[in-house]
Amino acid sequence: MRVAVDAIGGDQGLAVVVPGAVMGARRHGVGLLLTGPESAVRAALERTDTAGVDIVVRDAPEVVGMDEHPAQAARRKRRSSIAVALEAVRDGDASAMVSAGNSGAVMAAALMILGRAPGVERPALVAPLPTRHGHTLVLDLGAVTDPKPHQLVQFAQMGSLYAERALGIARPTVGLLSNGEEATKGNHLVLETYPLLATAAGIDFCGNVEGKDIPRGIVDVVVTDGFTGNVALKVAEGVASFVSDVVRAEVTATPLRKLAAAVLRPAFRAVKGRLDYAETGGATLLGVAGMVVIAHGRSNETAIASAIGVARQGAVAGVAEAIGVRLAELNAGPDAA
Amino acid sequence: MRVAVDAIGGDQGLAVVVPGAVMGARRHGVGLLLTGPESAVRAALERTDTAGVDIVVRDAPEVVGMDEHPAQAARRKRRSSIAVALEAVRDGDASAMVSAGNSGAVMAAALMILGRAPGVERPALVAPLPTRHGHTLVLDLGAVTDPKPHQLVQFAQMGSLYAERALGIARPTVGLLSNGEEATKGNHLVLETYPLLATAAGIDFCGNVEGKDIPRGIVDVVVTDGFTGNVALKVAEGVASFVSDVVRAEVTATPLRKLAAAVLRPAFRAVKGRLDYAETGGATLLGVAGMVVIAHGRSNETAIASAIGVARQGAVAGVAEAIGVRLAELNAGPDAA
Repeated sequence: MRVAVDAIGGDQGLAVVVPGAVMGARRHGVGLLLTGPESAVRAALERTDTAGVDIVVRDAPEVVGMDEHPAQAARRKRRSSIAVALEAVRDGDASAMVSAGNSGAVMAAALMILGRAPGVERPALVAPLPTRHGHTLVLDLGAVTDPKPHQLVQFAQMGSLYAERALGIARPTVGLLSNGEEATKGNHLVLETYPLLATAAGIDFCGNVEGKDIPRGIVDVVVTDGFTGNVALKVAEGVASFVSDVVRAEVTATPLRKLAAAVLRPAFRAVKGRLDYAETGGATLLGVAGMVVIAHGRSNETAIASAIGVARQGAVAGVAEAIGVRLAELNAGPDAA
Repeated sequence: MRVAVDAIGGDQGLAVVVPGAVMGARRHGVGLLLTGPESAVRAALERTDTAGVDIVVRDAPEVVGMDEHPAQAARRKRRSSIAVALEAVRDGDASAMVSAGNSGAVMAAALMILGRAPGVERPALVAPLPTRHGHTLVLDLGAVTDPKPHQLVQFAQMGSLYAERALGIARPTVGLLSNGEEATKGNHLVLETYPLLATAAGIDFCGNVEGKDIPRGIVDVVVTDGFTGNVALKVAEGVASFVSDVVRAEVTATPLRKLAAAVLRPAFRAVKGRLDYAETGGATLLGVAGMVVIAHGRSNETAIASAIGVARQGAVAGVAEAIGVRLAELNAGPDAA
């Protein structure tokens, strides 16, 4: 299996993505197809120990900036590192694609080049957030800021399939993110979506969940619109990093505490491992006809390597194909997009 | 100054609220007007050391349950502990009101009994969330799940006035919560609100902020709809508590770590003090003609005492009156409610 990687995407570009991708390829036993300006990619590879990793470089002379207008960049830059990586997936030269680049441009280009999976109106971004017991999948994290109620139902169906296929969760439970547990709580969108989810096929709907229930992990899949999901994800990241900083500052405030803190260093490392929202390997774009993983722009090498793992896992499980088959069944009828 | 307190509101009722209110009254130098079934309130007072605290009890035979329908409870139970406390504020017998009871019922009753402040269409809930440098005010936290863009502008104006008057922040900065910093990011509501905020009088608008910027504290006031604000608050509470639990579990995982953790106990206590979202004293309902503080249903005695402090601070600063005067000026013209 080969994973296509946008070699120049991300805040730090080649210097981080290329060694991170090689690390991921080695760790997860996959080949790489790296896209980007060929000479620059090859130069980065020369600075990396690539022994034992099967690597193909595909030239992509155009670069999409992190702040470029996503749809425009996707339309105009047909030879970008993003577009060339997606074409490799479309043409079967790679089984999945990873990019830490402009996430809006990746989503727009994925829609243009791979297209939607059958039965899916709007693709959604899903990622696992750390909880007391493991992880909760949350979607949408920012692909669709104003979804329709029936599109949230599709998100629930796609999230359940992902949980089942890629993560091996039998009969995953689904919660609708709201401002209270009762069925009467919610904004207009939630109030309209609740009865649709309650009767929807292909999901095990458990009712509304609140923001505090995400880190509690009381359901396997939390469904929400892309605006609220994005805010929730970033609040969680921000608070986790804030709390870690406060702990660090307090436990090193005196020489005696510093001594004690040294003993606890492995404990703090373990905490960081259980909490690092950036380490989870990025978000998966569900609902396009191919496996696409969008890593954080700030990804370090480890995060890129993890994203390769997420991409491989999704490709092995055939998530994109399963979604296409199942959503087409569940949403048989005229395509309402 | 006297603060009216709903003595039976909250998950634990009298047993926590009465001693908490007495603690708060002593700490913040105010008198109390306690409302609830008189004999029960007096019995709770007998179990509390009330020396030196000026306490009046006002009988309120009806009880609003935590799960009762808010608007119905407010309409039907005119002699509830919530209603009687609000009437004391309306009639000038108390300068502010605190309740840890059914928050929806408190909001509905406050609108009925105190009414809206002049120029205000929809009251909003504001509370300070802990940040690296102190606190950021966030509103709305759940009063209005689907506000109109011009109502978000009013939230910004009310939040700024509260920051200025009650917290002494000169020219507070305002951010609009969105899924990206750029002016082009947001759902429909945010995209429509942004240009209104950019030209609104009475605020210092700094553009969009993201979820991670709340714990960073990069603006004084974060404005959002009540649905997103409620989710953000509860995600923050949930993640802070989750991280604390993970730290506690890891630092006590071995006997040696336990020993080191004992040395660090004051550090962990300091962390808890800086992070406890429940300790901040509850949310203030801005935009009604009186000072109303809604404490967390799960409030312990310290949280109730803090809520008394928040109520006193707002009453001394004349926040409700200032909002009435200023919002009427800023929104002169036909009342669009």
